[in-house]
Amino acid sequence: MAVYTHLSAEDLAELIAQYDVGRLVSAKGIAEGVSNSNWLVETTGSASAGTRFILTMYERRIEIEDLPFFLALLDFLSAHDCPVPRTIHDRQGSAFRTIDGKAVALIEFLPGVSVDHPTAAQARAVGVALARVHVAARDFDGARTNTLGIAESRRVLEACGEVALAAIDPRLPAALALAADVEAQWPGDLPASVIHSDLFPDNVLMLGADVSALIDFYFACTDAMAYDLAVTHAAWSFDKAGETFSEDVGTALVEGYESIRTLSARERACLPILAQGACLRFVASRAEDWIGTPADALVTRKDPMAFLRRLDFYRAQGTAAFA
Amino acid sequence: MAVYTHLSAEDLAELIAQYDVGRLVSAKGIAEGVSNSNWLVETTGSASAGTRFILTMYERRIEIEDLPFFLALLDFLSAHDCPVPRTIHDRQGSAFRTIDGKAVALIEFLPGVSVDHPTAAQARAVGVALARVHVAARDFDGARTNTLGIAESRRVLEACGEVALAAIDPRLPAALALAADVEAQWPGDLPASVIHSDLFPDNVLMLGADVSALIDFYFACTDAMAYDLAVTHAAWSFDKAGETFSEDVGTALVEGYESIRTLSARERACLPILAQGACLRFVASRAEDWIGTPADALVTRKDPMAFLRRLDFYRAQGTAAFA
Repeated sequence: MAVYTHLSAEDLAELIAQYDVGRLVSAKGIAEGVSNSNWLVETTGSASAGTRFILTMYERRIEIEDLPFFLALLDFLSAHDCPVPRTIHDRQGSAFRTIDGKAVALIEFLPGVSVDHPTAAQARAVGVALARVHVAARDFDGARTNTLGIAESRRVLEACGEVALAAIDPRLPAALALAADVEAQWPGDLPASVIHSDLFPDNVLMLGADVSALIDFYFACTDAMAYDLAVTHAAWSFDKAGETFSEDVGTALVEGYESIRTLSARERACLPILAQGACLRFVASRAEDWIGTPADALVTRKDPMAFLRRLDFYRAQGTAAFA
Repeated sequence: MAVYTHLSAEDLAELIAQYDVGRLVSAKGIAEGVSNSNWLVETTGSASAGTRFILTMYERRIEIEDLPFFLALLDFLSAHDCPVPRTIHDRQGSAFRTIDGKAVALIEFLPGVSVDHPTAAQARAVGVALARVHVAARDFDGARTNTLGIAESRRVLEACGEVALAAIDPRLPAALALAADVEAQWPGDLPASVIHSDLFPDNVLMLGADVSALIDFYFACTDAMAYDLAVTHAAWSFDKAGETFSEDVGTALVEGYESIRTLSARERACLPILAQGACLRFVASRAEDWIGTPADALVTRKDPMAFLRRLDFYRAQGTAAFA
């Protein structure tokens, strides 16, 4: 949550001049994104592009060779009436440019705010939007391997090791056996599309109960659509600590999704194991970050137990969690 | 440069509803201010207030009892055609509210960007804007003591101590004798007004060569107008390291100022000592921060030597620095 690079007004004005968006009027570094720097930029505008944009500088984690995939996906989904910001191309038609060796992209600004405490009506709208992305993206001519699947989660947890996991929480080493078990049951042949795979409330902009934008597609990959629904279910239907399940929110999310795309009986049957895999991904990444971050760092560490609790819930409830 | 407090969309919507500005449409935490959290907020708007605002939460440093002074000053200057954002008052007429014990204010958004490498034309416009503030503020019915004057700078440097100062840079202990010398020569009876006292390029928004806004008045106080011009001269006329003086920028700043308000012969004669006092303020605060910040902290420490170099320049040049 920071701006990692200083861009002077002079740098910004020179960059903006490479696009048909008018002259620079305002630029504020915004506290969004953990691996990017972002600015909310205003210009005098042009007929084709509006006046407000998010300028993103890709600082780390994102492989530059993946950037054409991510940015083309935004353009494709936007053109197919999904609530997704499109990329503004420069005068030469490029979707991104580089400054001092770092890639930058100018992206459409869409209004809306991210909710902390979603209502059922909001979750329903998110389900609708997610299904529309899945259906549209089946025709998208691009693919990217999911690098954060269940095998990777197991590997990360094993690399953390039982001792370090137990030091975070005595119940956390149980994730090791759970990961092996979930991996053994993982369904490899469910209907796939390009999926968001990280649709937390932070990555959805809403106006009241309407979805105005799905954002931050930098984990998008080709994988099972039902897995994406399971990730979203785990991200939206619990309090942050994973202690309380909101049945009405979870139900509304799935109902909204199915109003656009009906799940097959097999997808439904697989939801509990997919949700457990989703939880293990966040248990693993949070445990890894926790071990790598000093307790007195300025960055707030996220508790991996918040997702182990969700996993326990999905394991106990089975398909009833998605009724 | 961070957002220190999380405000949920639900908190923000509830806050915004206390003002006659329409409904919340967007809110982005912005990376500005070292002692405040700030959000760029968009609403559906109202006839009287526009659609975009800066929401500021006062986190530290600022005494809540000073807030009515700062906010009333913005309103006064804005009403007197100075390029200063006004405060939006809530439905009960209050200039600020409190959330969880912290004060928040909704402030007019003004366009513009802060320049890194000012031109003479830009410096001239800043001189004009500064003089207009000084002239207007003489009629402002409020006063606040300067708590960061030369006596305080000397006290801070002495509290740092010779050993700690020398550990930063072997030339830095010289600031102790310089502070005593400058304090002994300090002119106590120059024409006063309410001054900004911290008008670095960061605190000026520009559109081309025009000043669109002076911002961040949270060091404003009652003090000599020529001192404020000297602070601004030291802040604008050098490269960041204080190694290179841009004579054309410095000259344009003073010329712009005098196009609105002519300096008396005595004020002119005092500029060199006022500028040395201005430099000592930043030498002192930077030395204090340096000593208080671990070398491996995420926060970048600012080098006090950058202002000791400026002080050396003003001492050597005398009134020629302002020719």
